[in-house]
Amino acid sequence: MEHTQTSMSNTGPQCVEIDMEVHKVVPPPPKSTFQKLKNRLKETLFPDDPLRQFKGQPLKKKWILGAQYIFPILQWGPNYNLKLLKSDIISGLTIASLAIPQGISYAKLANLPPIIGLYSSFVPPLVYAVLGSSRDLAVGPVSIASLILGSMLREEVSPAQEPLLFLQLAFTSTFFAGIFQASLGILRLGFIIDFLSKAILIGFMAGAAIIVSLQQLKSLLGIVHFTNQMGIVPVMSSVFHRTDEWSWQTILMGFCFLVLLLLARHVSLRKPKLFWVSAGAPLTSVILSTLLVFAFKAQNHGISIIGKLQEGLNPLSWNMLSFQRSHLGLVVRTGLITGIISLTEGIAVGRTFAAIRDYQVDGNKEMMAIGLMNIVGSCTSCYITTGAFSRSAVNHNAGAKTAVSNIVMAVTVMVTLLFLMPLFCYTPNVVLGAIIITAVVGLIDVPAAYLVWKIDRFDFFVLVSAFLGVIFISAQGGLAIAVGISIFKILLQITRPKTVMLGNIPGTDIYRNLHHYKEARRIPGFLILSIEAPVNFANTTYLNERISRWIEEYEVEEEVAKQSNLHYVILDMSAVSAIDTSGLSFIKDVKKAMEKRGLELVLVNPLGEVMEKLQRANKAHEFMAMDSLFLTVGEAVASLSFTVKGRTSSNNV
Amino acid sequence: MEHTQTSMSNTGPQCVEIDMEVHKVVPPPPKSTFQKLKNRLKETLFPDDPLRQFKGQPLKKKWILGAQYIFPILQWGPNYNLKLLKSDIISGLTIASLAIPQGISYAKLANLPPIIGLYSSFVPPLVYAVLGSSRDLAVGPVSIASLILGSMLREEVSPAQEPLLFLQLAFTSTFFAGIFQASLGILRLGFIIDFLSKAILIGFMAGAAIIVSLQQLKSLLGIVHFTNQMGIVPVMSSVFHRTDEWSWQTILMGFCFLVLLLLARHVSLRKPKLFWVSAGAPLTSVILSTLLVFAFKAQNHGISIIGKLQEGLNPLSWNMLSFQRSHLGLVVRTGLITGIISLTEGIAVGRTFAAIRDYQVDGNKEMMAIGLMNIVGSCTSCYITTGAFSRSAVNHNAGAKTAVSNIVMAVTVMVTLLFLMPLFCYTPNVVLGAIIITAVVGLIDVPAAYLVWKIDRFDFFVLVSAFLGVIFISAQGGLAIAVGISIFKILLQITRPKTVMLGNIPGTDIYRNLHHYKEARRIPGFLILSIEAPVNFANTTYLNERISRWIEEYEVEEEVAKQSNLHYVILDMSAVSAIDTSGLSFIKDVKKAMEKRGLELVLVNPLGEVMEKLQRANKAHEFMAMDSLFLTVGEAVASLSFTVKGRTSSNNV
Repeated sequence: MEHTQTSMSNTGPQCVEIDMEVHKVVPPPPKSTFQKLKNRLKETLFPDDPLRQFKGQPLKKKWILGAQYIFPILQWGPNYNLKLLKSDIISGLTIASLAIPQGISYAKLANLPPIIGLYSSFVPPLVYAVLGSSRDLAVGPVSIASLILGSMLREEVSPAQEPLLFLQLAFTSTFFAGIFQASLGILRLGFIIDFLSKAILIGFMAGAAIIVSLQQLKSLLGIVHFTNQMGIVPVMSSVFHRTDEWSWQTILMGFCFLVLLLLARHVSLRKPKLFWVSAGAPLTSVILSTLLVFAFKAQNHGISIIGKLQEGLNPLSWNMLSFQRSHLGLVVRTGLITGIISLTEGIAVGRTFAAIRDYQVDGNKEMMAIGLMNIVGSCTSCYITTGAFSRSAVNHNAGAKTAVSNIVMAVTVMVTLLFLMPLFCYTPNVVLGAIIITAVVGLIDVPAAYLVWKIDRFDFFVLVSAFLGVIFISAQGGLAIAVGISIFKILLQITRPKTVMLGNIPGTDIYRNLHHYKEARRIPGFLILSIEAPVNFANTTYLNERISRWIEEYEVEEEVAKQSNLHYVILDMSAVSAIDTSGLSFIKDVKKAMEKRGLELVLVNPLGEVMEKLQRANKAHEFMAMDSLFLTVGEAVASLSFTVKGRTSSNNV
Repeated sequence: MEHTQTSMSNTGPQCVEIDMEVHKVVPPPPKSTFQKLKNRLKETLFPDDPLRQFKGQPLKKKWILGAQYIFPILQWGPNYNLKLLKSDIISGLTIASLAIPQGISYAKLANLPPIIGLYSSFVPPLVYAVLGSSRDLAVGPVSIASLILGSMLREEVSPAQEPLLFLQLAFTSTFFAGIFQASLGILRLGFIIDFLSKAILIGFMAGAAIIVSLQQLKSLLGIVHFTNQMGIVPVMSSVFHRTDEWSWQTILMGFCFLVLLLLARHVSLRKPKLFWVSAGAPLTSVILSTLLVFAFKAQNHGISIIGKLQEGLNPLSWNMLSFQRSHLGLVVRTGLITGIISLTEGIAVGRTFAAIRDYQVDGNKEMMAIGLMNIVGSCTSCYITTGAFSRSAVNHNAGAKTAVSNIVMAVTVMVTLLFLMPLFCYTPNVVLGAIIITAVVGLIDVPAAYLVWKIDRFDFFVLVSAFLGVIFISAQGGLAIAVGISIFKILLQITRPKTVMLGNIPGTDIYRNLHHYKEARRIPGFLILSIEAPVNFANTTYLNERISRWIEEYEVEEEVAKQSNLHYVILDMSAVSAIDTSGLSFIKDVKKAMEKRGLELVLVNPLGEVMEKLQRANKAHEFMAMDSLFLTVGEAVASLSFTVKGRTSSNNV
């Protein structure tokens, strides 16, 4: 016991003796709780400091900047010129030729009338062109959100038996999705979509692509009575229990066009300059197949066609939004999930192309733009829309310079809606199925999955969970499982933080992990541990047990090696970014336990917040290890080594 | 652009020129995925390495150690002697005098017949004496678990109308609680109870004490028609809507005994040596009040009494366990929540006294012991039991040396059950209410709450949430809210990790937070940032935005100060304990973004796992920042400074 007492005051006078400067560990400059709360809120909600451009500007300039902030079109509009317009017209027409057949197809995927897909390719792009900050995003319906919207609503309402109610619910879900997306942006809670990690998205997209493709077996095989479910098991059983409904004419036509479309896709993938081959292929297929059906009257030979479509622009639909209690839960849930999914896709696409062309996309602002677009859409007969992966890539390759390409596309769709609708009457459904499959096949990204497997096995596990969850349970179920596993991993990292033993790299003051750097050496008499996580309620019990095991193992090894006895346990706190009251009790307990063993606990480099709380705990008469603090492990060892020698010799007496 | 290219190969030859040793950053020694998984599982499930004592022992010794591991009584039993027995008898009798009145009271709190409380003070202590490893734990029913059990079951079944069914459900819940507790121990998932942090427990206990005390107003005021609910609002409204039922005789008697009991408690708190005053007070009060009622026939004057109790030992009750579907959900839920709560109390009490008397309590083993105790209990007419805070403290103060004090207590209860039951017939309920209030009043720990307020405002917020949640919603609701807030805080710390700017402490190689250490100075041409959290999917977007803001702010400041231009951004990774694929993409993206601005990204001290993944990503042809790695910030700055000077002069040309 007398060792402990003599060694308590080792930081003071001995520093002078050993002729070495020991740096004091000081608490950070004091701040009030209010200031801290303000800083914390700013970091949480405004990490990008969106108002910094307003600082120090005259009032008029502030107004202009404010208007430009809300309507990015005011930013680039004044500098718009003919050369840009030329590029935008070419890219706009290119994506229109994709958007028209895809719009019709995706609406069918969502169990909605085909015309809704065209409506949704007209109004939302116009809204986005005014509000959005991405220059490459091609806006419209997308496959996965369509699939989820359709399958979730179908759980409660049959689109065949109650088409009007189904349509109402689709618009209302879109309305809630928009409200939800805009709120995320306004409340600056955009980080919620970050929880859909890249690994999850790779697995989710691949699974969704397979589910979407399987659904197309209905039109590709010409089956009339098809399952309402989405899982791989019911769909396959439905396919093979209905072999009597297979129609060879449909299968032949579907196969030919599928090969044609996939070939076109292959060509464009090989030579990006030939992007127009795959971009134009769907419309070409639609025209070709329609002509074929018309010429051979194929609708009388087992090939199902779209049928008559209404002409004219989007009717207003705000009177179709239905907030009745009976389906309110369903539409809110559907809006939430499709809202998050489509937001994730839109933001990810926007960021990808912004990084390629080196401009900034403000995530929270984009959320408001996409949200508002869907709110307006839900009132003008549109269902959920966002920026689509495939079409945006085509838009970019076709040389789009600004959001004007979206306007060009919308105008083209408008012309179609006004004058060309009768032409689609004879379009066979089988071609729409082939178009969807060709579009979603690109979502299966095997090389990316392989890369994840090579780099991080746990992320790969998450990816596979998302994939299998989507295929065997449901799209939203797969997502929930994968996000749950990801969050569980984070919590496990906190609950079981790494503690590593440090050693000195000879000839330096550097201390590093003994198991990592083989040249690192232990210092006799010292056990130097580094905790690599915040210390809080979730891990104090573990850390306590782990540290006493470190000490016991060390003592056993020393006994074997007949080295000097252990005197000091140094905890390097450089990686402990935060601490709470449980963590403070832990340090107090460890200190007490050490003293009972005749050891002394030394803390090294507690960071700002930790130092502050240690000091506060000390002031509150909780006896903390405030008398043995050092700024670096090197200084601690140098300064305490003298005491070790003294103690060792007194032990031998 | 040419700067970037020339500065790419700076780590090699220049080190020689500047005559300084630069240490190489190496990846950790390779390990297979299986080895890593094994290590990770060991750290997660066996942090205390429970099998280490078996290592290198002969087979016979292993068997003995194994038996002692399962039955700790074999460990201390052989050395038991008369002196220890004397201490244990005194402490055993002391806690028996507490356990008998408390057992009856707590059973009433759980809406169970009073005799069940005595049964529960007989079998479980015997089981624990054989299996448990704590020497101070006094086992029996406890107030909070009793309250929760009673209130949860009462949501579906009325104890007054269906007393038999209610009893069956209580035993079945106890059975599930035991199964759940033992499974946590066997599966070594004990860390789940760590999520009930100390701050939560302080708030929860205080709230529960108030709820329990309010329930006693029924017997203290003599109200006959009392609410079935637990919240503060319905209870108070019930009290003041039934003023006609208040009975002055009951109130007078209750008041007198409450004052007596609280005085006794006060005396013992002031002088711990007089522990027997508060320990004996409840039994004295019961005897005194029973005599009073008997003498004055007070039961005819508005004072309600317990009534006739059955004599005899615990009847078997395994045939009363009911696994019918109609109430299965309820009993599983009740078992889960009461199981966790009572486990937390038992383990916390065990650890507290183990720390005081300096022996080890194995958490997972204790869970198995407590779980088995409840499984056996549920088959022998006992409801949920655990180690009680207050009684264990009395046990410790009364000098208990081993678990034999529990056996002595059980024997005393047995004698009571066999011969003394008729004596309790005239015990007034009002005294039981006073005993409960005196027992739970100690759970309100205002100084501890004040300490939390002083040290950590967020923890205090969690504490208050638990407190208010328990009072206004329900015990389980309050707990769920508080745990949810705690986990949300951890996730927020990960989502918004701290990044700090480092500066050099003059005259040293030490780099520390510029805002914390005022003497730290910037190095011209370098921006040194430290990330203080694992980099993963949840924070890469934030980090990206935050780092570009750091750079912009730095450049603006430098422009104002007309200092040299920025050339290098150094990321100190010492506190980045883990990284995932999103984190690796983040580093790649940052590096690319820097190159576009003409800056170079330098990484310092990536830890084992991070280094390994960086290398793997590099091998997979993902271009990472592997060419500019340094072991310390000091070495990076020293080695790159030459290049900075060269670049600055070439800039001026």
